[in-house]
Amino acid sequence: MTESSVRTNLYVIIFGTHTRAGKIFDLCLIAIILGSLLVLILESIPDFNAQWHQQLRYFEYGFTLLFTVEYMVRLYCSPHPKAYAKSFYGIIDLLAILPTYLSLLFPTVSFMAVVRLIRVMRIFRILKLVRYLQDSNILMRSLLMARRKIFIFFSSVSILVTIFGVLIYVIEGPEHGFSSIPKCIYWAIVTITTVGYGDLVPQTPLGQGLASLTMLLGYSIIAVPTGIITAELSKEMNIHRQLVKCPNCSQTGHDSDALYCKHCGSQLADPDKRVVSGTPPQR
Amino acid sequence: MTESSVRTNLYVIIFGTHTRAGKIFDLCLIAIILGSLLVLILESIPDFNAQWHQQLRYFEYGFTLLFTVEYMVRLYCSPHPKAYAKSFYGIIDLLAILPTYLSLLFPTVSFMAVVRLIRVMRIFRILKLVRYLQDSNILMRSLLMARRKIFIFFSSVSILVTIFGVLIYVIEGPEHGFSSIPKCIYWAIVTITTVGYGDLVPQTPLGQGLASLTMLLGYSIIAVPTGIITAELSKEMNIHRQLVKCPNCSQTGHDSDALYCKHCGSQLADPDKRVVSGTPPQR
Amino acid sequence: MTESSVRTNLYVIIFGTHTRAGKIFDLCLIAIILGSLLVLILESIPDFNAQWHQQLRYFEYGFTLLFTVEYMVRLYCSPHPKAYAKSFYGIIDLLAILPTYLSLLFPTVSFMAVVRLIRVMRIFRILKLVRYLQDSNILMRSLLMARRKIFIFFSSVSILVTIFGVLIYVIEGPEHGFSSIPKCIYWAIVTITTVGYGDLVPQTPLGQGLASLTMLLGYSIIAVPTGIITAELSKEMNIHRQLVKCPNCSQTGHDSDALYCKHCGSQLADPDKRVVSGTPPQR
Amino acid sequence: MTESSVRTNLYVIIFGTHTRAGKIFDLCLIAIILGSLLVLILESIPDFNAQWHQQLRYFEYGFTLLFTVEYMVRLYCSPHPKAYAKSFYGIIDLLAILPTYLSLLFPTVSFMAVVRLIRVMRIFRILKLVRYLQDSNILMRSLLMARRKIFIFFSSVSILVTIFGVLIYVIEGPEHGFSSIPKCIYWAIVTITTVGYGDLVPQTPLGQGLASLTMLLGYSIIAVPTGIITAELSKEMNIHRQLVKCPNCSQTGHDSDALYCKHCGSQLADPDKRVVSGTPPQR
Repeated sequence: MTESSVRTNLYVIIFGTHTRAGKIFDLCLIAIILGSLLVLILESIPDFNAQWHQQLRYFEYGFTLLFTVEYMVRLYCSPHPKAYAKSFYGIIDLLAILPTYLSLLFPTVSFMAVVRLIRVMRIFRILKLVRYLQDSNILMRSLLMARRKIFIFFSSVSILVTIFGVLIYVIEGPEHGFSSIPKCIYWAIVTITTVGYGDLVPQTPLGQGLASLTMLLGYSIIAVPTGIITAELSKEMNIHRQLVKCPNCSQTGHDSDALYCKHCGSQLADPDKRVVSGTPPQR
Repeated sequence: MTESSVRTNLYVIIFGTHTRAGKIFDLCLIAIILGSLLVLILESIPDFNAQWHQQLRYFEYGFTLLFTVEYMVRLYCSPHPKAYAKSFYGIIDLLAILPTYLSLLFPTVSFMAVVRLIRVMRIFRILKLVRYLQDSNILMRSLLMARRKIFIFFSSVSILVTIFGVLIYVIEGPEHGFSSIPKCIYWAIVTITTVGYGDLVPQTPLGQGLASLTMLLGYSIIAVPTGIITAELSKEMNIHRQLVKCPNCSQTGHDSDALYCKHCGSQLADPDKRVVSGTPPQR
Repeated sequence: MTESSVRTNLYVIIFGTHTRAGKIFDLCLIAIILGSLLVLILESIPDFNAQWHQQLRYFEYGFTLLFTVEYMVRLYCSPHPKAYAKSFYGIIDLLAILPTYLSLLFPTVSFMAVVRLIRVMRIFRILKLVRYLQDSNILMRSLLMARRKIFIFFSSVSILVTIFGVLIYVIEGPEHGFSSIPKCIYWAIVTITTVGYGDLVPQTPLGQGLASLTMLLGYSIIAVPTGIITAELSKEMNIHRQLVKCPNCSQTGHDSDALYCKHCGSQLADPDKRVVSGTPPQR
Repeated sequence: MTESSVRTNLYVIIFGTHTRAGKIFDLCLIAIILGSLLVLILESIPDFNAQWHQQLRYFEYGFTLLFTVEYMVRLYCSPHPKAYAKSFYGIIDLLAILPTYLSLLFPTVSFMAVVRLIRVMRIFRILKLVRYLQDSNILMRSLLMARRKIFIFFSSVSILVTIFGVLIYVIEGPEHGFSSIPKCIYWAIVTITTVGYGDLVPQTPLGQGLASLTMLLGYSIIAVPTGIITAELSKEMNIHRQLVKCPNCSQTGHDSDALYCKHCGSQLADPDKRVVSGTPPQR
């Protein structure tokens, strides 16, 4: 086995998803990612960390070693190492190992916030999982197709929230905790999204009236994004029906499993040969 | 009347739902289940339990006796007693009577939590009601058909919630109550689902900004599961498509305005004479 | 003008809604109802009531007198006074005047709660407004058509909420405020509907995990009733399309303003003479 | 270049949106509006204002000057200055500059609330942004078309909320904070919209039962506005129906599979050759 064939084999296993070995590799990687996230989470629990600090460190070094090997092998077997290193997944793979090495390089940093920041930067490893959510394409595409409307929707919400925030600032004022406009806008968002923490609450009758208006508005405009996405999604789901056309009467709207035109009874193109471009070619 | 015919009759009454006697049996059973749940709930109210403890005990023994008899008779009249005992409903029926016998067997257990646990295990009796929610099939089926998309959706939500939880952990930190990552993830779930208890609240401007982002995101992605289920449900509700059958190849799934079978091209029954019974026969 | 013609005229004005006089009568009645509700609400504000008690009383007596006259006239001019008195609106009209007369009959009642109860019973006057929400029929009908599914949905929610309530009762227990199962079920409802008051909050990690599960479940099943109603509503809104049939090719699905069949081009029935029974005959 | 042509040129740049200069002018204006809003928001933060008070004042005067110049130029180059001054945007443009001049005219006003009110009236500048949300038309139109149903929906919610508010007022009473009916209606709105601040919480079992009912009702009727808007929106999105025009009677609104005009019966263009441009030309 030449070096070149080793590289090709490794490439098929590591980057591909269709071979048996490739699938096993993917499952192992998912398990390792989830394991390393678990270590990160357990480390943040004070009691747990006090008792098992050393063991968690060892696990962390082990996972980092595995990810380092994975990154090296990906660089080695990729036909275009530079392109991989610069791609979204290449950067994610690098970000997944950097924090641990950083914390080893600067072990004497004692400013707690920085230590905590570097430590939790390992959370980027979760993005390695995105690779395995390929089927999220339909959802992504409907979101993309609706992006103009979503932008308008968010602009309108921003304007509304600013106006309501300023109004409550005037009505309630700093004496009831509404001490600055940004805080009041935060209150308006908490209210219009129906979250309602209750840390900032209107106390004058006028303020309660304004809050009621904000809630009812939020309650009814919750329908707008729902309607937008539903409409886009059902359009997306019907897309293949529009792509099958009868060669005789030229009518569309046939199901993807239809063999004969439902309007004139003439034979349709072979379903297997039809280009039902529901799923665009993957990277 | 031979023993065999007694068994058959009992089987029809207890397992069947179409005879008059069977329906009366079902209604009685539902009443007994609801009664036993009421006893369980009343028992948990300290004041009420203090005053009526003895009477509640007697009721409880009575209900357990009735469920025991029901279980015995089901075992007796079922043509495959073993299969019944191992089935979902068989296990539920057994779980419904076990806790009371357990509490009788170990009356001297004084560890409060265990007593409470055993006592409330009787709640499994509520699952006996599921038998009577047969019509929930349409809902169940749409959920099943959308399970891939729901899985992707929940994976995405999990990833989002973990990222937001870690970010708020770094921004707010233990000094404002965000003392560990699991707790922060709990906060992120409370926020993204718009529940908003208010027990954990961001107190720095940066944290409030992050919380606002989380809320708006949660507010807009509430549309995604809604859209998924709506699309699946309206597909499922096109039940009449399933009722138009081709006289030649016997396949279903034709549109209500189809003239020819989309599978074999032979002519369908005249759309006007077709029985498009919107509602499938009810039990 | 005979007495009979006076009765008929009054009937047309008071019960009818199409004449000019009838419309003016309706608008006046709506104004009086809203006015009497305003008096009720103002009376409940301690400061306001202390200052304007006497004036509010006079207004209240005036409104009651007007409603009494209205009730008398309705009884007088209705062709079937008994049927009116027993109908839904007849009972509402009676309930609207009773509380004030009751409070006049028993002026010395000093038990505050009873006084408050009798006073606020005047709220039933709000139901007099329902008469003017005739267009709520489409909404009502979709709700009625979906009632089986809504029943199943609420049964499932009840079962879920009971199970989650019992589980949190076992996990958190009375020491964290979850002192009885009904209170825990209340917590589960507060959580699953994403209201989240924050008066009862899980404090153990296990309880917070269970709460997270409850929220995510509530967040995703919010889609189910939405999906049900949307599907019913869009079916209801398309109903007239199914009722117009082409006399030549017998195809349906024409818009309500279509003059010619879109499939064969032959003339459809005159839109004005078509029976588009979208709105069933009202009482 | 005559004065007239200068005016025309200015008009095209300032009121038009299609020329290069017009687009640059619009972008600058948006930046200035956002900048002036930022100044307003920063001014409201006590710490920030204490330190940078003078600088913020200078910025504010600068923005006001720019808006004044813009208003003057618009008045100057508009062909109908009076019509512009009285139009929605004309009034907004005037309101955007008035508050600052008012605060200069009355510098000695020391009543804090009035100062704050005048200062935040500058928030109306945000409405200048509405000019640039032209594409919100589809959303606006669906809301307008559904306005009857939305009115019925809000009337029903108002009635429900009043009834629930009065009921909780009777059940819980002033001793648990439910001190007047308006406050109780506020509680009912907070609950039915699933906001749930937690500032007013039922404390009796009966009150908690009523609250549970309110929540479940709110949870299920959230579907109604969603359903209404979704149905209207998807109708609105069938925009290609508006693009198929009959060659004989010039009427639109034909289904994409229609062969004959539904209004006059004449043959439509061949469906395959029709330009069904799903997205109308963008600006």
